[in-house]
Order: sequence, then C-alpha cells, then structure tokens
Amino acid sequence: MSRVRPIVERMHGYVPGEQPQGGRVVKLNTNENPYPPAPGVIAAARAAATDELRLYPEPSARPLREEAARVYGVRPEQVLAGNGSDELLTMLMRAIVGPDDIVVYPEPTYSLYDTLVTIQEGRALTIPFPADFTLPPALFAAEGRLMMVCNPNAPSGSLTPVAMIAELARAFDGVVVVDEAYVDFAPPGSTALPLLAAHDNVVVLRTFSKSFSLAGMRIGLLFGHADLLAEIAKVKDSYNLSRVAIAAGTAALAAVDWMERNVARIVATRGRLAAQLAGLGYDVLPSAANFVLARRAGQDQGPVQAALRDRGVLVRHFATERLRDALRISVGTEDDTDCLLAALARLSVARRTP
Amino acid sequence: MSRVRPIVERMHGYVPGEQPQGGRVVKLNTNENPYPPAPGVIAAARAAATDELRLYPEPSARPLREEAARVYGVRPEQVLAGNGSDELLTMLMRAIVGPDDIVVYPEPTYSLYDTLVTIQEGRALTIPFPADFTLPPALFAAEGRLMMVCNPNAPSGSLTPVAMIAELARAFDGVVVVDEAYVDFAPPGSTALPLLAAHDNVVVLRTFSKSFSLAGMRIGLLFGHADLLAEIAKVKDSYNLSRVAIAAGTAALAAVDWMERNVARIVATRGRLAAQLAGLGYDVLPSAANFVLARRAGQDQGPVQAALRDRGVLVRHFATERLRDALRISVGTEDDTDCLLAALARLSVARRTP
Repeated sequence: MSRVRPIVERMHGYVPGEQPQGGRVVKLNTNENPYPPAPGVIAAARAAATDELRLYPEPSARPLREEAARVYGVRPEQVLAGNGSDELLTMLMRAIVGPDDIVVYPEPTYSLYDTLVTIQEGRALTIPFPADFTLPPALFAAEGRLMMVCNPNAPSGSLTPVAMIAELARAFDGVVVVDEAYVDFAPPGSTALPLLAAHDNVVVLRTFSKSFSLAGMRIGLLFGHADLLAEIAKVKDSYNLSRVAIAAGTAALAAVDWMERNVARIVATRGRLAAQLAGLGYDVLPSAANFVLARRAGQDQGPVQAALRDRGVLVRHFATERLRDALRISVGTEDDTDCLLAALARLSVARRTP
Repeated sequence: MSRVRPIVERMHGYVPGEQPQGGRVVKLNTNENPYPPAPGVIAAARAAATDELRLYPEPSARPLREEAARVYGVRPEQVLAGNGSDELLTMLMRAIVGPDDIVVYPEPTYSLYDTLVTIQEGRALTIPFPADFTLPPALFAAEGRLMMVCNPNAPSGSLTPVAMIAELARAFDGVVVVDEAYVDFAPPGSTALPLLAAHDNVVVLRTFSKSFSLAGMRIGLLFGHADLLAEIAKVKDSYNLSRVAIAAGTAALAAVDWMERNVARIVATRGRLAAQLAGLGYDVLPSAANFVLARRAGQDQGPVQAALRDRGVLVRHFATERLRDALRISVGTEDDTDCLLAALARLSVARRTP
C-alpha cells in the first residue's frame, strides 16, 4: 500500500516554469516583473531583518492588512494575507471544497486549480473558453461550491468586464473567486473589488509577484466579506507571513505609484511586442496582462520554445491539445523584448531556408 | 447553507499564543528563543533583499536543502523545506490523510494536530499519556495512516528515547512523524534522524523557530525517504520559501555552533527555573525542551496566568481538563526568569495573605 493517499499517488504536482539560478538568460517564462521593487521595499525588508527575527510575526500580518485596507478602501477584516496568492488558493480550496464538491471554471486557465481540486477530492467542472476567450455562456448556468475566474485570464491574457463578473456572482450559488494576479496590467476599472460591497459570495485575489515585483518575497492578499474570511482563516497556518514579508508588503503598498510606473512601461512594451509578433506571423490575443499568448494555428510551438531556450531565451509552452500551437511570452524590458524578437526572427528564417 | 465546508464551519481554528507587537513584556508564552540568531543570518537575510526579489525563488529551496544535507548527513532529496514546520505538518496531512483515515498520537500534545486532522476529515485516535509522560503502551498496537510523536513533547517537555521511536516505527504500518521542534534542547543522541536509514516510514520534522532563533522568518525542514518526500512535495505550494527565508536558513545552518551556544545557555537557565519553581510549590516535569510544564495539582492556573499577564509576564495556559492546573513557561534569559519568579513569588504571598 502506498504511504500517501491514492489520489496523491496518482496525481502529478503542479510544475512551475523553469527558475534558473544565475546565468545569462532572458527570462520571459514565469511572468515576473522586469523592473525592481520600490527602493522603500528593499529598505523595509532589510530593516525587518534584525534580532527580532527570534520572535514570531503578528499571526494575521495586521500591518500589511491595515495598509491594504487603506489603499483599496476596505476594512482590515476584509483582507486575508497569504504566503503568495498560491497559499490563499490552497486555503480557499481547503476551506470550501470537500470530497465530491464541484469547482467550476472556464479553461484553459491557471492549471494549479486542477491540482488543488484533485487534492481536495473535489470535482472540476471545466467549461471551454470559445476562441475569443469571452466567458462561456454555460458558466452562468453552472452550479457548484466554488467558481474560479482568473481575470485577466492566464495564459490567454484576456479580460472579462466587471459587469460580467457581477452577473456571474448573481447567477452562482457558491463562492466566486476572481483571481486578479494580473489586473494591475489591465485598464483602470477592471478590478472586481467594487463588487464586494454588494456580493458577499465574491472574493478577490491579488499577488505581489507580478505588478509589485516581489515574486521572490511571497505575498498575496485575499479580499472578501469579513465573515467568509474569518471562516477561511481557520485553515490558515498560524504564522504564514514572515516578519520580512509583512514589512516588504506594507512598504510596497505605500509605494503604489512606483508599481504603476513600472506597469505603464510594461504595458507600452506589450503593445510593441504584440505588433512585432504579429509581423512574424503569430496570432496574438489582445492581452490585459504582463504576457501575451502568441499562436501559429496548428503548428506545435514546443520545438520553437526549445530552440529559443538554446539561444538563452526562456518562454512558456503548455503541451496540451488546446495550447500546443502557442507560446506564452512574458513582457520584459525593451532589451529583453528585442532579444526575443531577434531570436524568433532568426528561427523563422532558419525554418524557411532549406 | 454555509459558504465553507460544514466541518470547517463547526471547527475552531488553532489559536497560537498571544503575540504582542512592541511594549515591555516578558514573553514566555510561545517558546521563542531569548537570544538572537547568528550575525551571519541577519547579514544573509539583508543581502537577499535586493532587486532580485522581483524573481521567484528556487521552488524547492535547494541551497537550504543542500546545506541541511551537509549538516545532518543525508542527501538533499531526503530534505523538504517548509514555510515553518507548521506548513510541513499541513503538507503531511494533506498528502497522507483522506476522509476517515486514522491519525494516531498520544495526548496532550501539540494541539494543531487535532485541527489538521479535522480539516482532512480524518479521525484522530488519541491515547492519553500516563502521568509520567512515557509513551502509552497502546500506541504500539495502534493502526492508522499516520502517527504523530512530538519529541520532546509539547507541552510536557518529556523525552522519548530513540530506541522507543524505532520500536514504534517497526510496530506501526503507516508513516511515523517525529516532530523534533525542540530536540536541540534535549541531550545529544535524542534525534530520530539515524532511524531514517533503516525505516522508510519515519519522517523527522525540524523548525528554525526555537533553537535557531528564527520564529519570525518561517523555516522548517522535513527529513525522510526520498520517494516519500517526492510524493509529499506534490501538495506543496510551488514557491513556499521566499528568497530571504532560503538565505537566512542556509546561513543559520552554517552557524550551528552559534545555535548550540544559545541552547547551552537556555538549558542552564532551564535547570535553575525548574528548581526555583519547585521551591515555589510547583511540580515541574523534567524537560528536554526550552520550556517547562509547572503544575499545582488540582489548582486552576488560569487566574495565575492572568495575574502574571497583568504584571507584564506572558506564560501559556491551556484550559483543558488535563492541563488546567499547569502553566507552560518558556525558558527566557536569566533576567526574564528572575522577573517571572519574582512575580510568581509575589502572587504566592498575596494568595497566602488574608
């Protein structure tokens, strides 16, 4: 008999994008921010690394939650902090999904959802996105305990208007998680945070890994009704954020303008990247995130990813039926983007030359 | 209908000891180390707080695992790193315990085990410790998926010899978790790490929160058979340790001698604390940890804890049948210990004066 649960033995864990440590690569495979966090964030992290590390942190990361409440116009009780938004996804699943409970989401989307539903012995009811990645109508008729809407969606970059999310919240009897990991790269007014006031079944998930340039620090926030968050907090590890993470996250929120400047640069580069990829023959879906999905219909892009890797450029490829002919490319600096485009152009020439 | 699972709605979350932020208190309630981490740890944490925080950490915390492998004489594949040992406990439960699976442990012990078993819809088979806190014989006949042995045990501080743990490993058909959060405070030769070579169903859990003075940094390690750890890692969040935590943990292991010096001071103070508590009329169980359990048979110590709190001294009281007449007191500095003993002595005088 296996020493772990049969369901765990059978499953594959979620495999994150490659994370090379050191070396000269153009890293456009895990949607990190090419620009650094605000100087005040580095200073705050260092200032928190003192002899006081011998003491436990505030269990609920209160300073961070209070600053988030100020910035996003909610009460601290409407904010739960996580060791990255991945931990908050784990907490949501553990709190809400039991054996045979249904979790609904359109696909393709963030594939970690599949893994987490499996671990809970829940049932994923996945509804395919149409080609233009608008929300599938069947979603509005679905029933379940939990619905996941990644918005902007990964890996498509597509954006669902808030009004549609509000409709979903009205139609769905369970909890709707709006995973807004990438929303800071979307046009203003894209967030579902204003829905919290009228919909006690909506929770909004944010991460500091993308727009705030803090993937290495592990900070996420969950916004929602105070009563629901209090229930979810029951499955939280007692001290899930370190003293350093609490300090860094609080400082990042105090420097939102720095984040917004970085976002503006990335959005500008995204436009150029999309246009030039189109020039190289790719179909590029309009993106509201810090990456683009570039497709050559019917042509497996696995070999292209491998060839780019040989040239020191990392991009993401998903070997699934629906995504095999696409590459997900993070928006880097202008230089990163030049490197990627030059490498892709050379590959295209090579392919056309007998 | 509740928005969370019925089992989560019914349960209480684990409540950690009070964590005051700032203020002058003598804090002897959560078993923190009164001495700071090694200077190299602070330096390493600060050095990791750079612009590179924009990048994800190495997903498996490889540098930390490699250093742990070197220090503890195992291979890196035999080490799993966690965001505190609490996260590793959560991972163990999620990987191994499904609905109705049995988890066996003697009690009283770390009460987080109860919470985690409940969340998994598992069944806790708890076997009472006898008064001297030796392992109850029924444990050796128990069957289940998982057995938890906190050693030294909390909150008793009692130590089970490794030879007994080996017997348990032979007798039990599931996985035996030896939670060694406090083992660095026990006599040499107390760790179950040597059992790993012959017992593929034993895993050993360590934390950096106690002996290494890093409660605020959130670092734990799990040691075990590489195949078992690979299965458990499937339920791990992708990037569960920050870049700063990986750096700090690695530096702490490189300065084991610093930790051992702090431990020696704490062990010395523990002896004096136990003797003087006995002088004040408490029964003090021999402790192999950085705390003592001090009992006045049949006298509720809740009011004593509250009175100490009013005097700025925090200790832990558990309002359960078995523990109501006891206080769990962390071993602090010599000064902390003097403060505690003086406050307790004054309370005793006050009680005796009409």
